[in-house]
Amino acid sequence: MKYEFNNDREFDVIAIGRACIDLNAVEYNRPMEETMTFSKYVGGSPANIAIGSSKLGLKAGFIGKLADDQHGRFIKSYMQGVGIDVSNMVVDTEGHKTGLAFTEILSPDECSILMYREDVADLYLAPNEVNEDYIKQAKVLLISGTALAKSPSREATIKAVNLAKKNNVKVVFELDYRPYTWKSKEETAVYYALVAEQSDVVIGTRDEYDVMENIVDGKNEDTINYLFSHQADLLVIKHGVEGSYAYAKSGEVFKAQAYKTQVLKTFGAGDSYASAFLYALISGKEIETALKYGSASASIVVSKHSSSEAMPNVEEIEALIAKNEKIEARS
Amino acid sequence: MKYEFNNDREFDVIAIGRACIDLNAVEYNRPMEETMTFSKYVGGSPANIAIGSSKLGLKAGFIGKLADDQHGRFIKSYMQGVGIDVSNMVVDTEGHKTGLAFTEILSPDECSILMYREDVADLYLAPNEVNEDYIKQAKVLLISGTALAKSPSREATIKAVNLAKKNNVKVVFELDYRPYTWKSKEETAVYYALVAEQSDVVIGTRDEYDVMENIVDGKNEDTINYLFSHQADLLVIKHGVEGSYAYAKSGEVFKAQAYKTQVLKTFGAGDSYASAFLYALISGKEIETALKYGSASASIVVSKHSSSEAMPNVEEIEALIAKNEKIEARS
Amino acid sequence: MKYEFNNDREFDVIAIGRACIDLNAVEYNRPMEETMTFSKYVGGSPANIAIGSSKLGLKAGFIGKLADDQHGRFIKSYMQGVGIDVSNMVVDTEGHKTGLAFTEILSPDECSILMYREDVADLYLAPNEVNEDYIKQAKVLLISGTALAKSPSREATIKAVNLAKKNNVKVVFELDYRPYTWKSKEETAVYYALVAEQSDVVIGTRDEYDVMENIVDGKNEDTINYLFSHQADLLVIKHGVEGSYAYAKSGEVFKAQAYKTQVLKTFGAGDSYASAFLYALISGKEIETALKYGSASASIVVSKHSSSEAMPNVEEIEALIAKNEKIEARS
Amino acid sequence: MKYEFNNDREFDVIAIGRACIDLNAVEYNRPMEETMTFSKYVGGSPANIAIGSSKLGLKAGFIGKLADDQHGRFIKSYMQGVGIDVSNMVVDTEGHKTGLAFTEILSPDECSILMYREDVADLYLAPNEVNEDYIKQAKVLLISGTALAKSPSREATIKAVNLAKKNNVKVVFELDYRPYTWKSKEETAVYYALVAEQSDVVIGTRDEYDVMENIVDGKNEDTINYLFSHQADLLVIKHGVEGSYAYAKSGEVFKAQAYKTQVLKTFGAGDSYASAFLYALISGKEIETALKYGSASASIVVSKHSSSEAMPNVEEIEALIAKNEKIEARS
Repeated sequence: MKYEFNNDREFDVIAIGRACIDLNAVEYNRPMEETMTFSKYVGGSPANIAIGSSKLGLKAGFIGKLADDQHGRFIKSYMQGVGIDVSNMVVDTEGHKTGLAFTEILSPDECSILMYREDVADLYLAPNEVNEDYIKQAKVLLISGTALAKSPSREATIKAVNLAKKNNVKVVFELDYRPYTWKSKEETAVYYALVAEQSDVVIGTRDEYDVMENIVDGKNEDTINYLFSHQADLLVIKHGVEGSYAYAKSGEVFKAQAYKTQVLKTFGAGDSYASAFLYALISGKEIETALKYGSASASIVVSKHSSSEAMPNVEEIEALIAKNEKIEARS
Repeated sequence: MKYEFNNDREFDVIAIGRACIDLNAVEYNRPMEETMTFSKYVGGSPANIAIGSSKLGLKAGFIGKLADDQHGRFIKSYMQGVGIDVSNMVVDTEGHKTGLAFTEILSPDECSILMYREDVADLYLAPNEVNEDYIKQAKVLLISGTALAKSPSREATIKAVNLAKKNNVKVVFELDYRPYTWKSKEETAVYYALVAEQSDVVIGTRDEYDVMENIVDGKNEDTINYLFSHQADLLVIKHGVEGSYAYAKSGEVFKAQAYKTQVLKTFGAGDSYASAFLYALISGKEIETALKYGSASASIVVSKHSSSEAMPNVEEIEALIAKNEKIEARS
Repeated sequence: MKYEFNNDREFDVIAIGRACIDLNAVEYNRPMEETMTFSKYVGGSPANIAIGSSKLGLKAGFIGKLADDQHGRFIKSYMQGVGIDVSNMVVDTEGHKTGLAFTEILSPDECSILMYREDVADLYLAPNEVNEDYIKQAKVLLISGTALAKSPSREATIKAVNLAKKNNVKVVFELDYRPYTWKSKEETAVYYALVAEQSDVVIGTRDEYDVMENIVDGKNEDTINYLFSHQADLLVIKHGVEGSYAYAKSGEVFKAQAYKTQVLKTFGAGDSYASAFLYALISGKEIETALKYGSASASIVVSKHSSSEAMPNVEEIEALIAKNEKIEARS
Repeated sequence: MKYEFNNDREFDVIAIGRACIDLNAVEYNRPMEETMTFSKYVGGSPANIAIGSSKLGLKAGFIGKLADDQHGRFIKSYMQGVGIDVSNMVVDTEGHKTGLAFTEILSPDECSILMYREDVADLYLAPNEVNEDYIKQAKVLLISGTALAKSPSREATIKAVNLAKKNNVKVVFELDYRPYTWKSKEETAVYYALVAEQSDVVIGTRDEYDVMENIVDGKNEDTINYLFSHQADLLVIKHGVEGSYAYAKSGEVFKAQAYKTQVLKTFGAGDSYASAFLYALISGKEIETALKYGSASASIVVSKHSSSEAMPNVEEIEALIAKNEKIEARS
């Protein structure tokens, strides 16, 4: 089963939200207190997805707000360098700073992030900086949940969804839940439900769907009944190492395994998953294949040092899928 | 043409939003600088509508947050006194104050209001203070636009709309636009559009619809095309002394004249209009009649000193309508 | 013993701080919930002291910030009307409101105040609105403790003290402690100590001195040792109905009794005390006499409805003192 | 001429204020946009001075507030490692972050800093976290001007000065002016004057004294007249490459040249100057010698990569002084 897009659009995907700086520990397997050097990368979920998509060959654009400083200029220049249209990345004029994420890699499965998200520029994107003429050129508008966390980015994002619906642009909602950005779970649930009910495709972990529904231990069955009664027709629910599911409104269900890899750190898995899944879907591949692309891409990124810089190309993804299918065939 | 409600509900209308204090100049026709005495009344658009509806005989409830002080207790006691269910009016525990409106009555058509709306209790109503079990008992959930102006009242209101839709409660949206409460027109437009698109009935002045559409000199034709493409099926658009229109999704259009009166001040016209219109609609009267009820009620209130205390009963409204129809018949 | 002032100055006293609105219950001896009418007066400790001083015949000026609205204009006009120089009362341009105090007169000794002090204009007086050329024309700069509660009024007040010291203007510090205006007792103590150490005369209740020293049950003996080791040479410590003491650095101690009266409410006692005490001191009366003036003035104001409007003239004060001295002589 | 201290104290110097993180560009001589790796050091003026003093052999303590995260723990551990008493460095419990300074080294004389100072932990030091029992053990309390920039650190610092004066601890005020931390120049001037008037020793650049006096192109002569009329008895005024002056209240004036060096970057010069000057003064050296120590130490630090880690020991400082005196002797 394939998913249909409006093909007469200039951009495959336009993402909206944060583009930040990751400062990744150069020295691994130790507490951050003992890390003395950090490498700089572009980060932030929607930026990573745009970068990953662009490296896979999609035509990507980005709507966001950048600090008027060296970090902001680095981000714009890097994203432009990988082929993203940055014409709608505006520069903040009120002194807000770029969000930062210092990563600590204690061990492959013990990673933590020290965030600087206080009054960051990306959350100051304003509704009047979101342009209908831009959005209507896209097949997909990619929303990241974190962009809903604070005003005026919240209103800019709601406006973008409204304009996308009006112009038959598919809304893909990556839940991307970061608790430190929100005031309360109740507030998160209000905005997650609001946008999910208007989205065509929703992607998230089971835990993130629980946040949206403001419940504990939610069931996929209930989630799909809820969202399919609104406007969604494709839901991806990820269950970590147990793999991920895609539910179509038509009733079909697809499942993909997680690919084993030599894990260096856990960051970036969700973003690489989303970018490869979107690439495959927009390229006209079967939903089932798209899930494999997502899993393979995630698997590659967690074995490398960065999130954005490590985004794989199509050959790497397909090689990993092929290798795993051989293994499966043998076993 | 009548408008259908779900009749097996305990409450005719539950309003959500602010309940405040009006301090009306005892001495008229002078600048407030020279006013030395003020009379205290309950005020705030949704409180006034609930009070007006209750005095007309509807079973009304209210969801709101009150300051933990003498003004808050006065409001609760007054509203309970006119028959409103106050079980969902919660008391603020963080020291926020009751909103105040000092009115100046310079002349019948030169009135101004000096507002105290900084960090007021009503805007601190939180999503977890909005109960599904309460809302689902209502025929109508009445939303006042001002409740959307600030968090967390904004999220509480969005949640209330969501719960109303889920439980087949009609959502009536009184636009009630107060510029001083909002950060920007762009932000207002985002939330007004969001709620109007989900409402069944929208009531406002032409100017207020322009705010919702973020345009100047909007046309009723465009407004009804826009909102009828979403969920609304009845729109009331008021044009001041030129009268008001009701547009039904079925295509019918109704018009009512404004009734002439001895105007004392202009405050309270919109609230008394809404309460009488709702009363007539819920009582099973024709839409055209409901418009007359609204106009007559507004006409009565602007001839008196307060907004809430002056809300008329059915006899007064019907007497005014009858009197005017005689005049029209003669002319 | 008399207190010396620099007599070649145009103003007897320039006060700095808040000028607000009191809304006094017209109906007495009932809870505010049942009060339906309020009378408007100018209020705020330093404004009341300036008004009281001016009515007694002192040449007074005022440094403060007023809301750009009807309440602000009323205050300016009223203060000008009683003879105060208002040339240094600036108008706020950022939408801040006038502070309000609703008074409840439950019984003569059960009074409470419902304050509106959120983001009020008086606390936005900025350092650049305090002029050395103005301050240096005064015999006395009167500081009210509440002006230290928030920035930028805090810095404006510290600057005013600095300019007064530089120009040999006596600094009189009325502690005027209002807990709701402050973040913490610790913060209050820091600024109260800072200003008290630089003041020539300090006036307050025993409780207010305790706040300044951040202690409980402080002793006058310790307080005078502490402040006389800095720059003060006259301290007035009030003990309510037990009367008040004046301590001079020279070692002399004076005491005055509180005068019995028919108390209507307790508001305004401190302000009327300070204005009459200052009047007597600046007029060259003995410190002991000045204490009597303070007590008599307080006694008169608590028997009347307002704080500002009720400020007595010299004849009333002297009549009350004379009457009491006859009574004492007889007993 | 020597400067006298109270020698029966356990600590030579206790500094109060910020301890932060510097992230210094590993790659030099390029814009930060092209810097891909950053090295982590402890930074912040009073922390650097404490570290520098401690490395020179003084017994140092520190009063400050640290983020409850990896950066906060690194700072505490590093400072403890160089011998500083950290018993009065408290941990923030409200989620505030460590201040950051990313340095850009474009060329030896074109350096810039990208600061993260929004809601940082050090500015949340509260008055009740400043202990009299600790301060009274010190010969010197070192105040950094930036600690005055925001509440509650501002009040904590004013309280510390008050306690130092009360206990005969010399107050040394390093003006350390950072414009981005302050709301306005007027506000800065108010607090700088307040603390400078109570300090025994003030150290700053000519530009910083201008900020304190809220003037342009101030003269040293006026500055010393002003501050010597209050409590100061030693002022150090630095004029960049033209050298620095020390003015004693007794009338003596001392001057020191800046030492030539191979400059790598300009950061850290002021802090290294202050630490070596204080070391020499407290060690009983002549004021003139102390100035040379300051200059030599500054010269060494600007030739190295960090501010804190590069703080020299006594041998390095004395070697540089000796080398320069030979050169001077020859010329």
